[in-house]
Amino acid sequence: SPHTSASKDGEDTFKILVATDIHLGYLEKDPVRGNDTFVTFNEILDHAQKNEVDFVLLGGDLFHDNKPSRKTVHSCLESLRKYCMGDRPVQFEILSDQAVNFHYSKFPWVNYQDENLNISIPVFSIHGNHDDPTGADALCALDILSCAGLLNHFGRSTSVEKIDISPILLRKGRTKIALYGLGAIPDERLYRMFVNKQVTMLRPKEDEDSWFNLFVIHQNRSKHGATNYIPEQFLDDFINLVVWGHEHECKIAPFQNEQQRFYISQPGSSVVTSLSPGEAVKKHIGLLHVKGKKMKMEKIALETVRTFHIEDVVLADHPDLFNPDNPNVTQAIQAFCMEKVELMLDTAERERLGNPRQPEKPIIRLRVDYAGGFEPFSVHRFSQKYMHRVANPKDIIHFFRHREQKEKKGIDLNFGKLVSRPAEGMTLRVEDLVKQYFQTAEKKVQLSLLTERGMGEAVQEFVDKEEKDAIEELVKFQLEKTQRFLKERRTDAEEEKIDEEVMFC
Amino acid sequence: SPHTSASKDGEDTFKILVATDIHLGYLEKDPVRGNDTFVTFNEILDHAQKNEVDFVLLGGDLFHDNKPSRKTVHSCLESLRKYCMGDRPVQFEILSDQAVNFHYSKFPWVNYQDENLNISIPVFSIHGNHDDPTGADALCALDILSCAGLLNHFGRSTSVEKIDISPILLRKGRTKIALYGLGAIPDERLYRMFVNKQVTMLRPKEDEDSWFNLFVIHQNRSKHGATNYIPEQFLDDFINLVVWGHEHECKIAPFQNEQQRFYISQPGSSVVTSLSPGEAVKKHIGLLHVKGKKMKMEKIALETVRTFHIEDVVLADHPDLFNPDNPNVTQAIQAFCMEKVELMLDTAERERLGNPRQPEKPIIRLRVDYAGGFEPFSVHRFSQKYMHRVANPKDIIHFFRHREQKEKKGIDLNFGKLVSRPAEGMTLRVEDLVKQYFQTAEKKVQLSLLTERGMGEAVQEFVDKEEKDAIEELVKFQLEKTQRFLKERRTDAEEEKIDEEVMFC
Repeated sequence: SPHTSASKDGEDTFKILVATDIHLGYLEKDPVRGNDTFVTFNEILDHAQKNEVDFVLLGGDLFHDNKPSRKTVHSCLESLRKYCMGDRPVQFEILSDQAVNFHYSKFPWVNYQDENLNISIPVFSIHGNHDDPTGADALCALDILSCAGLLNHFGRSTSVEKIDISPILLRKGRTKIALYGLGAIPDERLYRMFVNKQVTMLRPKEDEDSWFNLFVIHQNRSKHGATNYIPEQFLDDFINLVVWGHEHECKIAPFQNEQQRFYISQPGSSVVTSLSPGEAVKKHIGLLHVKGKKMKMEKIALETVRTFHIEDVVLADHPDLFNPDNPNVTQAIQAFCMEKVELMLDTAERERLGNPRQPEKPIIRLRVDYAGGFEPFSVHRFSQKYMHRVANPKDIIHFFRHREQKEKKGIDLNFGKLVSRPAEGMTLRVEDLVKQYFQTAEKKVQLSLLTERGMGEAVQEFVDKEEKDAIEELVKFQLEKTQRFLKERRTDAEEEKIDEEVMFC
Repeated sequence: SPHTSASKDGEDTFKILVATDIHLGYLEKDPVRGNDTFVTFNEILDHAQKNEVDFVLLGGDLFHDNKPSRKTVHSCLESLRKYCMGDRPVQFEILSDQAVNFHYSKFPWVNYQDENLNISIPVFSIHGNHDDPTGADALCALDILSCAGLLNHFGRSTSVEKIDISPILLRKGRTKIALYGLGAIPDERLYRMFVNKQVTMLRPKEDEDSWFNLFVIHQNRSKHGATNYIPEQFLDDFINLVVWGHEHECKIAPFQNEQQRFYISQPGSSVVTSLSPGEAVKKHIGLLHVKGKKMKMEKIALETVRTFHIEDVVLADHPDLFNPDNPNVTQAIQAFCMEKVELMLDTAERERLGNPRQPEKPIIRLRVDYAGGFEPFSVHRFSQKYMHRVANPKDIIHFFRHREQKEKKGIDLNFGKLVSRPAEGMTLRVEDLVKQYFQTAEKKVQLSLLTERGMGEAVQEFVDKEEKDAIEELVKFQLEKTQRFLKERRTDAEEEKIDEEVMFC
């Protein structure tokens, strides 16, 4: 049991429950899955309570809809009031100016310090892209909770010109956390703002290095288009841990970025909202321990999440079983799929965790690649057989035809893949990075010029305006960052040397 | 100043702030009037706070929209948290079973007794027709507030078969209040339920007569169609005071119903939502004092309500000014209306109360009866002249043509008008009532039979199915009520006498 008792050691240790993308209200009208998000939110808060955490940290998309239904808001208030109020005293203090941290709130102070509210577990949350502020009032659903005193909405920037992220400074015993948050912003815009140096993370003036710097963000982490994500490298080096929301795949174990010093924990969603392989990864939340500048992320498996199993079948891979010329081939395919689904149902049943609140019917998805002259069978009929056994009978089968993936000839913007291992110092690393970037870019161009097949494509892709702009912006950003860094730490002589090296840009 | 200090006398006196039909969010997108409802709600709660009331009692339609906007919910939560939380202790106790009083709530107890909330002014509210429970979840906007712990939603009946109204039993010193509430129900349905004896007001078993019985209701009080309202007579005689919501005209001074023992106070809305004369009556809320079984209603004029002035002009009444054959008559009418509006604006300005939060621009409505061969002028043009001086430039002028009112020949269902003055005892009163009812009905029929003009109409109206059903239902209801009453109090012999008297029904 993760139930731990307060120890002397605990006086200096923050215990933080970390979760994200809870998507309250997702499919709320579905008679089978309608309550899933509410059940799991209760489980999450129950873990927080049982583990006697200092606070809960959410990474956005607490709500699925920008304007959640009355039922969803009601249910959320109910859960927060039930689990987060009580007599257990909050053990940490806030050192920063709360009027700055919560400047857009009607009650610009942390809820547990409000003398009219008896809060035992403060919840801190940034907003996600699903529950971001909209409309003339520029309010978001979280603000309802925050106005009711049940949540602390932070990390909201009101300017489109400049983002200054003022951390909430927390202290528990001898441990100090600087909590930075940045609510969801359209990726392209934020990308541009990073490149244009419009994003600044403010740091406490005194004892800069004594803080554990924790940053919560809700953006695309994986690349969707040239500038439609936030490269990890954009984030400041002084950060210790990034809690990355928005991405639904659970990768909660902190993973160190090879160039920057920080670790990234991606808790993933607590509900399956798309039938893709990433969502089939077992869902967890994290119990983050921070003591001094050390941290430990304990994984907590969520027991109430509806199980989800996804498998692929490539019909053309089974010439022994399926012959497209056989008039009965469609029946054979259907029988094969049915067997597959039965096996998946068995697996799902075995994997149930025994929590009485875990929903019974699993989500099942069988993706059938019918390329090679095959025809899809009636999904409607097939679905009906599983009406009472799976949670998503209507989309249990997904037919697709595999197209051979074109080899990407564009410049890979992921610096992590270019640099094999971190160099000694930070400055060298960035230098190397830039150098290697252009070397690799040149090699790729040469390669594509030498390759007859796909040559036009590769060149075209390379000169693609948007991609090119993106590269330029990114390089410019990295160079300026390097220069800024060097200006602070290096002699003028050394600076010139760098300037030369980047001249060919 | 209505600011009163706690006295020894106060120990036994409930001070209740009474208001209704606040319609938060009404016209919220109107750039001029958008904030009116929020401003006045704050004024109301400020009065509650300054007067150190024991609680606030609302008669429904706190929200204008069934699904109020995020801004409206946010603003309401803000006001309640600001004014109703604090350290001043609540001085009364609740004797009834709160699990019954608030049975549909997730937190079925009064908010001020929740140990996690520091409530200084509990707000009790029934729902109105604007903010009634809807949808599969059967929640209403008030439930959001109640789930957040900032309001006590009561008087909700969940059955359509039978309504048992369990009072909230309150005690302060030696004063005991039985607080009954009935949230809005479609009038026709509730009318039918009353007639079918499906509505029961439960009474405390002990010391039945020691309670001050306060009933809050939100229904049509004035007759809209035969059964589309609730006749005052339907309400139980043991009630002491009815707070009647829904009707927007302020008639807050308690007015005694001549047949029943109770008084009715109709606070009226705190915002003008229709441009009718009733809404032009000065808006008030009430400070109700209850000590033992005595009460006093103190009127508090609302100072932030936008002033509203309405006047009628009948063009045909001014033959000296307007001749329909004059080619310039329309200009003359327009000039005349403009003069009128200027005078109304002057009056509005004089009547401003000096509260800096009272909005400046008044609502002005001039109703122009253009019967008699006149033509309306361009309202659009006229409006533009007042764009910056009135709050409702677009509907400042209303043209209509008066139709001669057909004299109502139907049976007047308002027993109050039939009985000239109360008889000695309750039993006699009801007997007399029934007797007089039929006498008057007969006379009316005779009268209409004797009158040549409109005879057919009157008979037709009299036999009109719906009206007839309504009469029958009402008579049946009154008779049964009488019989029930007599059965309890009279001898069998006396009962028979009554039976005879009503035989001709």
